[in-house]
Amino acid sequence: MKPKITLKDIARELDVSISTVSKALKNSKEISKETKDKIKAFAKFYNYRPNNIALSLKNKRTKNIGVVIPDIVHHFFTTVFRGIEKYANAMGYNVIVCISDESYDKEVINMEMLANGSIDGFILSLSAETQKKNDFTHLKELLDQGIPIVLFDRITSEIDCDKVILNDFEAAGDSVTHFVKAGAKKIALITTENYFNVSESRKEGYLAALKLNNIALDDRLILTLPHDRDNTNLITEFFQNNDVDAVLCVNEIFAIQCMSVIQHLGYTVPDDISIIGFTDGILSRYSSPQLSTVAQHGEKMGELAAKLLIQRMESVELVEEPFKTEVINATLVKRGSTIN
Amino acid sequence: MKPKITLKDIARELDVSISTVSKALKNSKEISKETKDKIKAFAKFYNYRPNNIALSLKNKRTKNIGVVIPDIVHHFFTTVFRGIEKYANAMGYNVIVCISDESYDKEVINMEMLANGSIDGFILSLSAETQKKNDFTHLKELLDQGIPIVLFDRITSEIDCDKVILNDFEAAGDSVTHFVKAGAKKIALITTENYFNVSESRKEGYLAALKLNNIALDDRLILTLPHDRDNTNLITEFFQNNDVDAVLCVNEIFAIQCMSVIQHLGYTVPDDISIIGFTDGILSRYSSPQLSTVAQHGEKMGELAAKLLIQRMESVELVEEPFKTEVINATLVKRGSTIN
Repeated sequence: MKPKITLKDIARELDVSISTVSKALKNSKEISKETKDKIKAFAKFYNYRPNNIALSLKNKRTKNIGVVIPDIVHHFFTTVFRGIEKYANAMGYNVIVCISDESYDKEVINMEMLANGSIDGFILSLSAETQKKNDFTHLKELLDQGIPIVLFDRITSEIDCDKVILNDFEAAGDSVTHFVKAGAKKIALITTENYFNVSESRKEGYLAALKLNNIALDDRLILTLPHDRDNTNLITEFFQNNDVDAVLCVNEIFAIQCMSVIQHLGYTVPDDISIIGFTDGILSRYSSPQLSTVAQHGEKMGELAAKLLIQRMESVELVEEPFKTEVINATLVKRGSTIN
Repeated sequence: MKPKITLKDIARELDVSISTVSKALKNSKEISKETKDKIKAFAKFYNYRPNNIALSLKNKRTKNIGVVIPDIVHHFFTTVFRGIEKYANAMGYNVIVCISDESYDKEVINMEMLANGSIDGFILSLSAETQKKNDFTHLKELLDQGIPIVLFDRITSEIDCDKVILNDFEAAGDSVTHFVKAGAKKIALITTENYFNVSESRKEGYLAALKLNNIALDDRLILTLPHDRDNTNLITEFFQNNDVDAVLCVNEIFAIQCMSVIQHLGYTVPDDISIIGFTDGILSRYSSPQLSTVAQHGEKMGELAAKLLIQRMESVELVEEPFKTEVINATLVKRGSTIN
């Protein structure tokens, strides 16, 4: 018997990307005929059958849920994970986690590995690279095979499945309005590249709230940072070159780096500059002053995602329920980094 | 065909603990004959065969590594995980994580689930409850079945396998000596219950260093806290009742809570009270003042654990290498919370 072969093996053997293999096997027009023929022949020779997965699943319930998150450094994802575990364990399910490290390839490999009979369904937040590539073939394939998926936080409208999101637009807007009420006029936004749906919604909420409060947009006050690095130098430059009296950061790590830079430059928080950061994590509670935050209620989000997935997996109806998108309302937590 | 049955199923059906089932199937003297007979009969009827696992493993390499860690809130475990991933990915392995949440049952269930054909070997740090119960039947069983295990940080001498640890004894001693050199005499230790091998070693290092520096032990200066809760009240009481000029904390979260309490009581860090915390995490870098720490080099520890495991899994020798315990040397990182 030939050994069992995976997408990853085919990609490695033929020296093409995983995404190319996946598309070729789905007969995508994006891939040249020559490449498709080569990949299909190889897959056939080694008896590659993605549909094995779905068949085995129908016969055997593992009672395991696979969770794929972009990283475990952000407190937000660890709290969502806790919520998933809490609900899933109470319902008799185990939870297995894989980390995509913001990489498309790792997301695809991890999902293929878990789908291979280890789990009954997925809860997923898209990696940065997946959102950037805007390629969701791997998700479509799993859904086609009958494996349910729930997306949370970093989602896409291209995939039809259950989703749980935050009211990012409103939460960002409320933060800006809170700054305005305390007298701020020069309100900055520190965000990530816009291919994240969440960053985009938060930016739109920021823009809308400025308009609503009759504050003209100053493009220079929007700082777009590379995702997840120490951006101390870029933040320092930003505050040296701009006159700012309040700043909204789209994540906790940016907010804490911001506070550190502002204090280092000799300004006082919140008297000179106020700060609000998304994610109400452990960093926010132990900074000095404590950070005002937009609490994303990660645990609640995780519980809800697990609930939607388990309902979907256990549904016995022939006619499927339509997919739902549940919205969690953020809460503004006022602490020492804002004038309240 | 009868459905495949797991230890957990047997425990649930017969209303006994997982540990009882595991021991009964290994014919342990701790379990009554009556219970053993019942469990064995049930297991036999449902064709429970733990050795299936080892057989399937020999035939099929998954190229997956299972990691079981006690939590993902402590920065230390997330950095170890990163190190494992870095090394394992470079060697062509994927990594699956399960979280034991400091629970013995969850550790056993997760390991059984992963051992069931999903992974080739384990990297594990023991849960609090497992260390407290001192019951390692589940690990012995997996090792007997030929599944290699590497233990890191929270280990036990009862299991013969590859291990990676920190020089906790010396690291704690060096911290105390650093306090003494800066003039401290009333040096406190904030630690967890002693069933953690790491806490025990750190306490012994603390005691030995006091002796070496001719400082008499004052029992009242050792505060033992429940694991992983917000202990603000207990810490506040401790500093109200004791005159302290330096404090060593066995983890970062205790150290940050400590700093917050000390400042709240009106003392200045480090002029009135110096602090050193184990784990050089993200909290330590963004506190004010920044925290002096014992860097545990989690990433290096993870890489080494993955290396030991992969060497063991890929070894083709008939005569096995003897098991190794590798020791990582901690580094004292001097920042604003100590007088340097």
